Amino acid sequence: MFEIESRDKETRARSGILKTGHGDIPTPVFMPVGTAGTVKGILQQDLIDEIGARIILGNTYHLYLRPGTEILKASGGLHKFMSWNGPILTDSGGYQVFSLTGNRKLTSEGAIFKSHIDGSKHVFSPENTVDIQRIIGGDVIMALDECAPFPCDYKYARKSIELTHQWLDRAVTRFRETDPLWGYDQALFPIVQGSTFDDLRKKSAEKIASVSLAGNAIGGLSVGEPAEEMYRIIEIVNEILPEDKPRYLMGVGTPVNILEAIERGIDMFDCVMPTRNGRNGMLFTGEGIINIRNRKWIDDFSPIDPDGPSPVSLYYSKAYLRHLVISGEILGAQIASIHNLAFYMRLVTEARNQIGKGTFRQWKNHMIKKLSERL
Amino acid sequence: MFEIESRDKETRARSGILKTGHGDIPTPVFMPVGTAGTVKGILQQDLIDEIGARIILGNTYHLYLRPGTEILKASGGLHKFMSWNGPILTDSGGYQVFSLTGNRKLTSEGAIFKSHIDGSKHVFSPENTVDIQRIIGGDVIMALDECAPFPCDYKYARKSIELTHQWLDRAVTRFRETDPLWGYDQALFPIVQGSTFDDLRKKSAEKIASVSLAGNAIGGLSVGEPAEEMYRIIEIVNEILPEDKPRYLMGVGTPVNILEAIERGIDMFDCVMPTRNGRNGMLFTGEGIINIRNRKWIDDFSPIDPDGPSPVSLYYSKAYLRHLVISGEILGAQIASIHNLAFYMRLVTEARNQIGKGTFRQWKNHMIKKLSERL
Repeated sequence: MFEIESRDKETRARSGILKTGHGDIPTPVFMPVGTAGTVKGILQQDLIDEIGARIILGNTYHLYLRPGTEILKASGGLHKFMSWNGPILTDSGGYQVFSLTGNRKLTSEGAIFKSHIDGSKHVFSPENTVDIQRIIGGDVIMALDECAPFPCDYKYARKSIELTHQWLDRAVTRFRETDPLWGYDQALFPIVQGSTFDDLRKKSAEKIASVSLAGNAIGGLSVGEPAEEMYRIIEIVNEILPEDKPRYLMGVGTPVNILEAIERGIDMFDCVMPTRNGRNGMLFTGEGIINIRNRKWIDDFSPIDPDGPSPVSLYYSKAYLRHLVISGEILGAQIASIHNLAFYMRLVTEARNQIGKGTFRQWKNHMIKKLSERL
Repeated sequence: MFEIESRDKETRARSGILKTGHGDIPTPVFMPVGTAGTVKGILQQDLIDEIGARIILGNTYHLYLRPGTEILKASGGLHKFMSWNGPILTDSGGYQVFSLTGNRKLTSEGAIFKSHIDGSKHVFSPENTVDIQRIIGGDVIMALDECAPFPCDYKYARKSIELTHQWLDRAVTRFRETDPLWGYDQALFPIVQGSTFDDLRKKSAEKIASVSLAGNAIGGLSVGEPAEEMYRIIEIVNEILPEDKPRYLMGVGTPVNILEAIERGIDMFDCVMPTRNGRNGMLFTGEGIINIRNRKWIDDFSPIDPDGPSPVSLYYSKAYLRHLVISGEILGAQIASIHNLAFYMRLVTEARNQIGKGTFRQWKNHMIKKLSERL
C-alpha cells in the first residue's frame, strides 16, 4: 500500500506514495476534513481544481447519525453518495463520542452515547465501528480508540491504553472476518494513545506495531499539551512504528506543527483548522498569518495571497474578503476555506519536493519563521 | 443602449440586446441579486461557469452601509472591489429603506433611516443616491422612489407617486450634472409606482415615459398583491412605457411570474427567490418545484435535475442535497442557489430563443403548467 520514494538524510522526513483503490496519494499529504460528507463550504469540483486535494476525511460519528448507514448503503457508499471519486479516510467515531462530555458512557464493551442531534441513544463498539466503516467505504478506516482528555493522570492514561489495545484486537478480528462491500480494498489503521507519558506511548506504539496493519496512526495529540511535548511524543512513537508503513498524525495542526511532524517522520495529516479558522477570518499565507477582520486590511486591495496557492487567492482582494467576513457573508467562508486548504496542500507538496531534493531541513527552518508571523 | 431583435407576433414579448460598458446582455434577462457585493454563496467564477449570469444586481442600501462609499471609491468601484467584470445594476436603496418599518422617516427631502447594523442615522435623497451610485459604478442605476406598502389606500398611493415623481426630477437633474467616475457610461432608470390603482399606474407611467431616460422600471409589484393584479398592472404600464427601451420589472418573481411578464413585454428581472428559497431547500426544475427537505427524496440518488441547467444539477443527487440541507451544511445552500439561478437563466434564455423562433406563446403555455407543479 505504501512506497517510500525519498528519505531525507538530515531528518526522519520521507516522501512516498500511498496507494488506494481510488488513486495514488503522494505523501506527505494533508486531508481536508469532510465531516458529514462535505468539506464545509466547498464544491467537490473545487476540492480538485482550487485545492488539489488528493484524499478527504469523513467522520464516522456524523455520517452514522446523518444520513445514516441505511442511506449510505443504499447509495453504494460515501464516494457515490457525495460524488467524490478520490480516496476517503474515515475516523472511527471515537474522538467525537469522547467529546460529548456528559452525554456518553464508557464501558469495556464500547461507548454508549447520545446523539447531539436528537438525544437518541447509540453504542459504538470496536466491532460495529468496523461494520459502519465497511458501509461508508473509506479507503482507509480507523480502529475505535479512547482519546484520553488532556491533562489526564497516569493511572487514567494507563487504563485507557489498555482499553484501546483490547478494542484494537476486537476491531482487527472483525476487520479480518469481513470483506469490503464496494469492490475495492479498505485498510484498517490502529491508533497509538498514551497521553503525554513517554512509557505509555512506547508501550502503546509497541502494541500497535505488533498488530502489523497496513498503516499506523498517532492520536491524542494537539489536545491542549504544549507543542514541544507533542513533538517529543512523535519522536518516541516513530522510533517504534515501522518505517515502511505510512504514519498518520490525527487532528494536527498548524502549518508549523505539520512541518515539525514531517521532520519527525509523519506522512499524513488532517485538521479542521484551515476550514474552521478560515470561516472566522484567519488566513494562512507563506508570509504569515492574517486576521482578515483586522481593520488594517479595510483598504488593502492587493490579492489575498500573492503566492496564489489557489486561483481564489489571487482573484479576490484582502479588502473584499474582509468585507465578506465582517458582513457574515457565506462567500467569505468559502473563499477563506479554499485558500487555507490550498495553502496546506501547497505546504505539504512543497515539503515533499524539498525532501526529494535533499533540502528539506533548510527549507523547513526558513518556513517555520515566516509561518509563525502575524501580519 | 437597447436593440430589439425579435418581436413575438402573438404577444408583446420581445428579445433584444442591452449594451453596457461591461458587455452586451441578451434579453429577456434575469439578474442574480448580489446584495452586499456578493451573490450569496456563489464564487464569481461560478456565476459565469455554472450559471451563465450576464448581469448582476447590487443593493445601494447594503453597499452604502458596508463596505461604504469610501472603500468603494478607493477600490475603483464595485466591479473592481468584488472582481466582477460583467455588467452591474444597482437599485436606489429606497426599497430596503422602506422595509425598515419603525426605523425610517419619510420627508419630501428624502428618507431618514437607521442602519440595521449599528443603529446609526443616515439620509437617502434623490441626489445623494445618484452620487452613491456614481461611486458604486453600476452600469444601470435607479432613481430613488417610494415603494408603497401593500395594501395601501388610494390617497396614500397618490401622494406616494407625487413624491416619487418629484424625486425623479431631482435625481435626473443630479444625474445630468454629474459624470461617471470610472470611465464607462451609466444609465439612470426611473421607476413606475402607483400600487394596484390603474389610473395612478397610468399617471406614473406617463410621467416616467416623459422623462425619456435610457430604460424604465416598474416597482411596487410582487409585494403581496394577487398575481392577476400584477399582470394587469404590467399590461397597463407597458401600454405607455416606450417600446424601444428596456423594461425592468423589479423584484419579480416565480418562474411563472417571469414568463407571464415576458409575454407582456418585460425585458429584465431580478429576485432573491432562487437564492433565498434555495437556501431553504426549494428547487425550481423544468418538471416542477421540489422541496428537497421532503422525506420522499431521502433515497433518491438521481441527479438534482436531469435537465441539467448547471453542471452541479447533474453532478449531485437529490438524496445528497437533501442530506446537506437537513444538516444545515453550507454546501447545501451553495448547490441549491447555483442550480436555481442556472434554472432561471436557462428559463429566460429559452424564452428568448422561443421569441426568436416565433413559438413563444405555445412554449410558455406548456411551461406554465409544468412550472407550477409540486413534485
